[in-house]
Amino acid sequence: MARRAERLNPSTIREILKITERPGIVSLAGGLPSADTFPVAALQEATASVLHEHAREALQYAASEGYGPLREWVAGELASQGLHCDAAQVLITTGSQQGLDLVGKVLIDPGSTVAVESPTYLGALQAFAPYEPDFVALEGDDEGPMPDALASVVAGGQRARFVYLLPNFQNPTGRCVGAARRLALVARAAALGLPIVEDNPYGDLWFDTPPPPPLAASAGVGEGGGAIYLGSFSKVLAPGLRLGYVVAPKAIYPKLLQAKQAADLHTPGFNQRIVFEVIKDGFLRDHVPTIRARYKLQRDAMSTALDHHMPSGTRWQVPVGGMFFWLTLPAHIDATALLPAAVEAGMAFVPGTAFFPQGGHANTMRLSFVTAAPAQIEQAVAALGRVLAAA
Amino acid sequence: MARRAERLNPSTIREILKITERPGIVSLAGGLPSADTFPVAALQEATASVLHEHAREALQYAASEGYGPLREWVAGELASQGLHCDAAQVLITTGSQQGLDLVGKVLIDPGSTVAVESPTYLGALQAFAPYEPDFVALEGDDEGPMPDALASVVAGGQRARFVYLLPNFQNPTGRCVGAARRLALVARAAALGLPIVEDNPYGDLWFDTPPPPPLAASAGVGEGGGAIYLGSFSKVLAPGLRLGYVVAPKAIYPKLLQAKQAADLHTPGFNQRIVFEVIKDGFLRDHVPTIRARYKLQRDAMSTALDHHMPSGTRWQVPVGGMFFWLTLPAHIDATALLPAAVEAGMAFVPGTAFFPQGGHANTMRLSFVTAAPAQIEQAVAALGRVLAAA
Repeated sequence: MARRAERLNPSTIREILKITERPGIVSLAGGLPSADTFPVAALQEATASVLHEHAREALQYAASEGYGPLREWVAGELASQGLHCDAAQVLITTGSQQGLDLVGKVLIDPGSTVAVESPTYLGALQAFAPYEPDFVALEGDDEGPMPDALASVVAGGQRARFVYLLPNFQNPTGRCVGAARRLALVARAAALGLPIVEDNPYGDLWFDTPPPPPLAASAGVGEGGGAIYLGSFSKVLAPGLRLGYVVAPKAIYPKLLQAKQAADLHTPGFNQRIVFEVIKDGFLRDHVPTIRARYKLQRDAMSTALDHHMPSGTRWQVPVGGMFFWLTLPAHIDATALLPAAVEAGMAFVPGTAFFPQGGHANTMRLSFVTAAPAQIEQAVAALGRVLAAA
Repeated sequence: MARRAERLNPSTIREILKITERPGIVSLAGGLPSADTFPVAALQEATASVLHEHAREALQYAASEGYGPLREWVAGELASQGLHCDAAQVLITTGSQQGLDLVGKVLIDPGSTVAVESPTYLGALQAFAPYEPDFVALEGDDEGPMPDALASVVAGGQRARFVYLLPNFQNPTGRCVGAARRLALVARAAALGLPIVEDNPYGDLWFDTPPPPPLAASAGVGEGGGAIYLGSFSKVLAPGLRLGYVVAPKAIYPKLLQAKQAADLHTPGFNQRIVFEVIKDGFLRDHVPTIRARYKLQRDAMSTALDHHMPSGTRWQVPVGGMFFWLTLPAHIDATALLPAAVEAGMAFVPGTAFFPQGGHANTMRLSFVTAAPAQIEQAVAALGRVLAAA
């Protein structure tokens, strides 16, 4: 086997999720959107239309770049958020997870430094790991990574290949980076010549006000631009369609495209055309607010339940979007060790340690509020409270 | 950028296909199946059923291994071809191209030797290339690679990580390896401790008699087995669904699975369930023979046209399955240099040089017989004959 295969390991979260899938358990452990939000009727109509009108094209091999009208739609949508790019810079991917793999493939050499938030999205660590980077953890606070931390990445030795950031309702912490912090991060990265890889799967899931413009809007994805931007349809339509996209500067795009072609030729044209058929006339303008409203109610239920049931010494921030609460327990408590008792009590969570590039932080956990109903959330958080109190 | 990005380059075939897509050109250049074979009605019915009965599951995140019933189906189908495996050894991939990428990721270190046929499938060279192998070309004849060539791969220095073989109606040559040659290849590979990666996208497309059992049937994919097997639904259903699979020994499967998870989490569950719904009650038993009958007529039309129109000194073998004729022109003729004149004359082909791991062989070309009707084939081959005669 290749040396890089040593960096491929079973996902601890995956293993944990297996034991939590017992009937009767209210699982707050998953990272799944609520299936109640999937627009089944719209997909039925769109699928019937694609197979009636364009079956031959939808079912044939297609361009590695993706379906032209969908790429145009993405460019238009991003422009409305302040991120201006050409449709020719949009690469449709098999979920945004594939975008992470392609970025790793094209940018990471064995021993390269990659700067990441700490904690950060576990799937990104897994996508980058086989390319054998050294992860450097950025210091941060409740609002996100500190701009000064970027300087230490460069000063501490070789310049990092890129810094990977999730400014909107990050998985796992739920935190959202404010407008001033965004500008400071972009300015510092630009001054240091450090490319930004911005991942935004959750940005549409805001509850009261939209998040500030993407980092890529000020860092730029044009000539000499300093950012690569990743987006997804998984949280606003359905993850089972596996549709995401990468937007890259013209200097990098051709290599990502060739890596994409080598990886799976192209993302299913069938799926691309169905999604375009669903969204082309503004469907998401009405649909996404229904997801926001649903998730906000569930966020509120979890916030209330945490206030009632958490013993003192447990800390959290109320997320203003996304899908997750992040809990920091008293320092002596090991969340992984508590999990069997929690499952016994009828609920499940994800221990936080796997999200840290260097491990540790055993006293943290992630709770999803989007797949359980408010009454279940109350019940599960009450059970967690009893388990924590006993510890 | 990473060093491996240097090994990513624009596909010359892709560039060639762009200039051949002019209206009025009869293109024999593509590697596409005929869209006339896509079972649109069956897909309409299956899609409606999946979205009516199982929408929540089909549209949600799913297991990286693939959809259980589809994996069972694959194991059953392979058993009927003499290849016995457990459904737990089947990994569903986003087209079999992704299987090639995952195999490269898990097995190839920079500088590893990988033994390939010469010529071989260009997409495999592209999938493996970013992992920086040294390709070694196996000597062969009209029936496939020579078993003795395997010994030279091992004797010539480091043992190859694997040998990549397409025994059925290979792309680009159309050649089919006979039963005795298969057994000799497997025996020699086993004696040398050389794993076989067997790719079989075209095996169902036989015209008169089925090909011999897969190499993996005798090499084994079980405990201590020496083969990894790749299959695809692209040629028997539709490539735009992007569905393939890898079957691997239990010692390698977990690493392929983790690489798969890192690459795109899972292949769209929507597509997997639709395909399973189409095929579960034996649909392919009636459908695939219609593809064979169609392609056989077109093969016959091209065979007749080549007999009529090729100048002396041009050699080819009549394929007994698959999608391609492979032409060897007189040694002084450069197929790439002829392409503009051929396009001017109203037809297009793919020059053969790109399929050779070490290039060269400028006097070769590939002709597809499956996307043009018999009358168009006659017209295009006649045009090619005039261009060759003038050269």
